[in-house]
This record gives sequence, C-alpha cells and structure tokens, in this order.
Amino acid sequence: MASRKTSIMEAAARVIARHGVRGLRVEELAAEAGVSTALIYYHFKDRTGVLRQTLEFISDRAERYTTERAEGAPPPTPREELEQTLLLELQDTTEVRENSIAWGELRASAVFDETLREELARATRIWVQEIAELLGGVRPMASAVALAGAAERLTALLEGLSTRWLSGSLPLPQARTLLADAIDAEVDRLAP
Amino acid sequence: MASRKTSIMEAAARVIARHGVRGLRVEELAAEAGVSTALIYYHFKDRTGVLRQTLEFISDRAERYTTERAEGAPPPTPREELEQTLLLELQDTTEVRENSIAWGELRASAVFDETLREELARATRIWVQEIAELLGGVRPMASAVALAGAAERLTALLEGLSTRWLSGSLPLPQARTLLADAIDAEVDRLAP
Repeated sequence: MASRKTSIMEAAARVIARHGVRGLRVEELAAEAGVSTALIYYHFKDRTGVLRQTLEFISDRAERYTTERAEGAPPPTPREELEQTLLLELQDTTEVRENSIAWGELRASAVFDETLREELARATRIWVQEIAELLGGVRPMASAVALAGAAERLTALLEGLSTRWLSGSLPLPQARTLLADAIDAEVDRLAP
Repeated sequence: MASRKTSIMEAAARVIARHGVRGLRVEELAAEAGVSTALIYYHFKDRTGVLRQTLEFISDRAERYTTERAEGAPPPTPREELEQTLLLELQDTTEVRENSIAWGELRASAVFDETLREELARATRIWVQEIAELLGGVRPMASAVALAGAAERLTALLEGLSTRWLSGSLPLPQARTLLADAIDAEVDRLAP
C-alpha cells in the first residue's frame, strides 16, 4: 500500500497534469489527495517542497515504467533495453501522459522559478547518465564524452518530441518513428 | 516605426517572457504597451487573439534574426545557412532569450489550452518546412521524406535544448555544441 506521502505526490502529479504547475495550490492538492493541508505542510514544508519531491517522484516513476519487462520474457539485449527505455516514454497511457505533462510543466516553470532549478538539473543529469550507460552497453568501446553527448541529445530530443505530441503538433506514431531513427543514428555514430 | 499593433505584440512577448503565458492579463499588457485595453480588444478581439498573433509575431521575428547577415558579407554556402539558421536560436541576447521563452511558454500552455493548438501546429510546420528546404540545399539528392524527418528532429532537438538551457539544466555553449553535432550527423545521413 502506498504511504500517505506517496499518495500526496501521486495526487500532485494528477493536479499538475490537469491544470499545470501554476494551477497547483496546497488546498486543491489536499482535496485531491483526501488529506488535510496540515499533513501536506508536515510532509513537504511548503509548496516548493511539494514540487521538488513530486519531480523526484515522477522521475522514479518514469524509471519504473520504462524498465518494466513482461514476466518470463527473455532478458533484452543492450540495444533492446536502450530502445525500450526511450520509446516507452512515448506511450498514450494515463500514467505516461500524466508523467510527461508533469515533467514538461516542471521544466517550463523552472524557467521562471529558480527554486526548482537545482533539483531539475539533478534529475536531468541522472536521466542522461542512465541513458549514457545503456548506450555504453551497446557500444562498449565508445568514449565517455561521446556517450554523454549522445545521451544528452537523445533525451533532449525526447523532451522536444514529447512536448510537440502533448501540445498537438505531432502525432504520437510519428514521434516514435523519429526517436527510433535518432537512436539508430546515434548508435551508428558511436561505432568504432 | 512599428505600428500600434506591432508594439502591442512586442509588449506581449516581453510580458510572457517575464511572467509566463498564464501571467498575461489584458490589463497588464495594456500598461506594458502604454495603450488602452479597448485598443487591445479592437485589434485582437480577446486574450486568445493576442496569444495567437503573438505566436505568429515571434515566429516571424525568429525568422528575421536567424537569417540576418552582416552587410557586405559573402553569401553563405547552403551548409552555413543551415547551421546559422539553427544555431542563432541559441544566443544569449535579450531578443533571442525573450523569443525562446515566449515560444516555449506558448508550446507548454497549448498542452492545456486547445485554442492555441492549431496556430502552434501551423507555425511548427512552417518552421520544419523551412529547415527541410535548407537541408535540401545541402543535400539536393535526398528524398522529401528524409529531409522532412531530419528537419523535424533538428527543430524538436533545438526546442528541447533551448528549454534545458533556459531552465538552468544545460550551459549555452554545450547546447550549441550538441546541436552542431546533430546537424553534422543529419547531413551525413542524408548523403547519397
């Protein structure tokens, strides 16, 4: 069973996906989570605390749904693991859509809100590092610098494609094809 | 001299860059532009009209500052023209920063606001088409489909890198290097 604190972060992700970060008020979050505002202040100190921890929560959740494999399925090759981890961020499910909207919102509001920047930069670095490691599994001879550059490009492209999808400028299947082609290209360029 | 209408759109871009799309109120815009709210309603009908036309205004302005060349400079090669057009979107000047923040804000708010989507999709298509044409100048033998895909990837990557830069997750010089490398890679892949 999810703890009270986790339920509050789940509710925060839902509220952000529905109305945006700037629509998130502690009173509304309390109503959505079915808890008192006092409990929210107890766990998160203030609204910024909610946003910071929700950012961490959606990063962890993305890591979970992009690494889940069907039970009994053969272990993926390094290449399959890389592709799945990136492409599973472009799925039309409630969870992925909600997560992607909330991530995009936190990113967009950090342009104006300096209190979120450090946490967001940290979450971004962790994500880039994770993709660099998967790329290194596919191309063990590539340099760390080349792997880091390819990972930064692929994740930034994924953010750009995701926001185009969610804002109605790009159909999801096309976004997936474009990302798959970019993975091919980056893996090719990392070849010895 | 800029017309009254243009001055209002310039003021709207400034207000959006300062407080975000959701911070834009017609009263505040009137104060920023030094005009009456009645004049804003006369020219733009309503707040949505302001946002739609400001989107077009910042697209046109980006087209101008990415295609300006120094007087007397030799005409750029197709490759230089492509690189400049994309890389000049990553500059730390007031105009580019303001334009990029406003574009990112309109993109982010279209996730929640359906009234902006059609105009934004149209502006995105025009931009992708422009980059596809520049890529075609470098690789005249490439197919229209391959050029369109490369242009969609490069512009989506640019949006992703720009938002990382503006939100404090990526230093500007690194964003430029990553984009320049991506241009190299796409041009290489389009080779016969």
